Amino acid sequence: MSEKINTWVPVPENSDFTIYNLPYGIYSQEGGSPKAGVAIGESVLDLDALQNAGLLTHSSLTAGVFATGQLNDFISCGREAWTYVRSELTSLLTDDHSALKARSAEFLIPQSAVKMHMPVSVGDYTDFYSSLEHATNVGIMFRGKDNALMPNWKHIPVGYHGRASSIVVSETPIHRPKGQMLPKDAEQPVYGPSRLLDIELEMAFVVGKPNELGTSVPVASAEEHIFGMVIFNDWSARDIQKWEYVPLGPFLGKSFASSVSPWIVTLDALQPFKVKSPEQDVEVLPYLQGSKEGSYDIQLEAWLTPEGGESTKICHSNHKYLYWTMAQQLAHHTVNGCNLRVGDMCASGTISGPTPDSYGSLLELTWRGEKPLKLADGSERKFLQDHDEMTMKAYAVKDDIRVGFGEVRTRILPSKD
Amino acid sequence: MSEKINTWVPVPENSDFTIYNLPYGIYSQEGGSPKAGVAIGESVLDLDALQNAGLLTHSSLTAGVFATGQLNDFISCGREAWTYVRSELTSLLTDDHSALKARSAEFLIPQSAVKMHMPVSVGDYTDFYSSLEHATNVGIMFRGKDNALMPNWKHIPVGYHGRASSIVVSETPIHRPKGQMLPKDAEQPVYGPSRLLDIELEMAFVVGKPNELGTSVPVASAEEHIFGMVIFNDWSARDIQKWEYVPLGPFLGKSFASSVSPWIVTLDALQPFKVKSPEQDVEVLPYLQGSKEGSYDIQLEAWLTPEGGESTKICHSNHKYLYWTMAQQLAHHTVNGCNLRVGDMCASGTISGPTPDSYGSLLELTWRGEKPLKLADGSERKFLQDHDEMTMKAYAVKDDIRVGFGEVRTRILPSKD
Repeated sequence: MSEKINTWVPVPENSDFTIYNLPYGIYSQEGGSPKAGVAIGESVLDLDALQNAGLLTHSSLTAGVFATGQLNDFISCGREAWTYVRSELTSLLTDDHSALKARSAEFLIPQSAVKMHMPVSVGDYTDFYSSLEHATNVGIMFRGKDNALMPNWKHIPVGYHGRASSIVVSETPIHRPKGQMLPKDAEQPVYGPSRLLDIELEMAFVVGKPNELGTSVPVASAEEHIFGMVIFNDWSARDIQKWEYVPLGPFLGKSFASSVSPWIVTLDALQPFKVKSPEQDVEVLPYLQGSKEGSYDIQLEAWLTPEGGESTKICHSNHKYLYWTMAQQLAHHTVNGCNLRVGDMCASGTISGPTPDSYGSLLELTWRGEKPLKLADGSERKFLQDHDEMTMKAYAVKDDIRVGFGEVRTRILPSKD
Repeated sequence: MSEKINTWVPVPENSDFTIYNLPYGIYSQEGGSPKAGVAIGESVLDLDALQNAGLLTHSSLTAGVFATGQLNDFISCGREAWTYVRSELTSLLTDDHSALKARSAEFLIPQSAVKMHMPVSVGDYTDFYSSLEHATNVGIMFRGKDNALMPNWKHIPVGYHGRASSIVVSETPIHRPKGQMLPKDAEQPVYGPSRLLDIELEMAFVVGKPNELGTSVPVASAEEHIFGMVIFNDWSARDIQKWEYVPLGPFLGKSFASSVSPWIVTLDALQPFKVKSPEQDVEVLPYLQGSKEGSYDIQLEAWLTPEGGESTKICHSNHKYLYWTMAQQLAHHTVNGCNLRVGDMCASGTISGPTPDSYGSLLELTWRGEKPLKLADGSERKFLQDHDEMTMKAYAVKDDIRVGFGEVRTRILPSKD
């Protein structure tokens, strides 16, 4: 770990937004338009104001790049710009004599005074299925222990296209989806609100460097194409999904909404938390053979809060449990020449760990509803009820240094008429 | 049919681009930037120049709306703007004394002198699976005659999310995709260029009116949300697809490219070709019950041209064969509250008809390669070879009046190293 750095900005103990983090987001103040900022402690640093004040100057940064309402334009400036801004901000935030400190009221806004927006415009969104434990759990439930894993699962990071338009940022309530489902033992499908509304605890990476259509990104350089990561809640209506998904995969059981945390934590900030990847006991084809150290030790939590009730931690997992690395996912995604664009999101799939309290979905946590969860307020849940609030958190800690993602928090509203 | 209209612009016999059509596209001239135009005969009408000359003036049309490089901004002006422009152009192109005729050199450009671009920026792309004949053929091949159709098929217009970034316009060559596949009788997958490269003859509609996240569009008003249609070639690498698609659906077997025709034919221009929809012998749920006249009589052709060889028509199908209507697809897509945005594309799925010469994919036309196609130059095809050129055409004809889509033409290049 790098040496201890001190910032003159107040950073509470256990804050996710330390000087080592510097995550990017899009915020607005009342009456103002959305702009790019960096979270530090309980403040947001106004990057547009910094640029306008001449405190961020680099040939790769175009004028107004932080005022476009999404981070795609800044990210498209390229790695040189990312490195410059990170290094410059670190210096401005640590140097006791920095121009920034003297004029901090011009550049720092309390997080409590801003509204957060989608950090990027997402061109395409892909969802992988990269947790061995999750794929195995779901396989056992639906096909039995002997056929749990599909024959392709250990050869390819299985993934599918998801819906980009319905990805929303934390604090955006969602309505329980309606749709078509086939009740147990029924012969005819019915229409109505989903009864089996579920979460999927995931993380997504944000593409930072595009590849042209027809070209592939080798696994060895795949991480260079990743800007950073967010927490990703892949809402799932299990009853709608079950009836529709054969043979072409999940569609309306997913596309009603996905929720993301507002701050993109850069891969640069996460480098200290890189760890050995899980053993892959089936040898993969050469285009998928990468570094043995391609995983990230990021703690994940899911909390359920009934309306007016106490919060219960229902899951504690870790990003490092994923069988397939992000580099393998990205190399596989482009092996056919598919072009990724800046701002595209690739989610991990539900991240379940080895123990029952680390399962990343209610489907697994309650084993298809057979073992309801007991909540702190005494109530039980098989799946989500209207007005429940789900919060997912993610953070990495090492040597007393913390880099966190904040949270993605979403309230479930009843179906619209 | 409306009465015969004459235009002073030369329109060759059998032209797709008659005065009844007026399809929109994005074109550029050498050295110029992409702008919106309308096809008429062998010319492109420069909408930006018309607006700048004060010949298209309406409060719903914002300044410069035809010069933004895609049609999303014009389409977003709304139905009032679409109706105004169509009516105004019809008048300008038919009135022998119109301001346009006298100054035609300022506004008409030969199609041979322009390059066509993607007509819209596609936010999300969805592919349906709405041809009963196609679903049945594929089902028989892979699961036998008795299990050909899945239990859900006649209850929901089955669909899945596709890749928006790799949709390209006609005349864009594509490289044979590489990927992972499991050869017949092999135990280990291999990596290499796809050997089973196929077409899918489809049409796609372009969303013209958005719906907000959490809201649904009733089937009765669904067509109001459709701006127009294009021909859609959903390229498919059957070997990659077969190995990857269980359980989450097609991914890299499709995402290397999809090709569209450059001119969007509006639903307004297609109204005269509306016909009775196929009988749906299983009663659908009320949210899918719509007009019995929701299909369009649009002839479809697929032509294969080997390098330096003669063209062979390999398929003749029709959009009216589709079991599910576009209105049903759109109502289903939004039943869960999924938001559609202007420019989104929804493709039909392969449009196969009742006879073997109307099957819309090589998979079906050659019955998995068992019955190779004989081409005009004497060669045979099971699937596509490098340097083959595929052309798909679509047109509607009634009472000597023709409204056509032009074509989507694509050459297959070898895999990149």
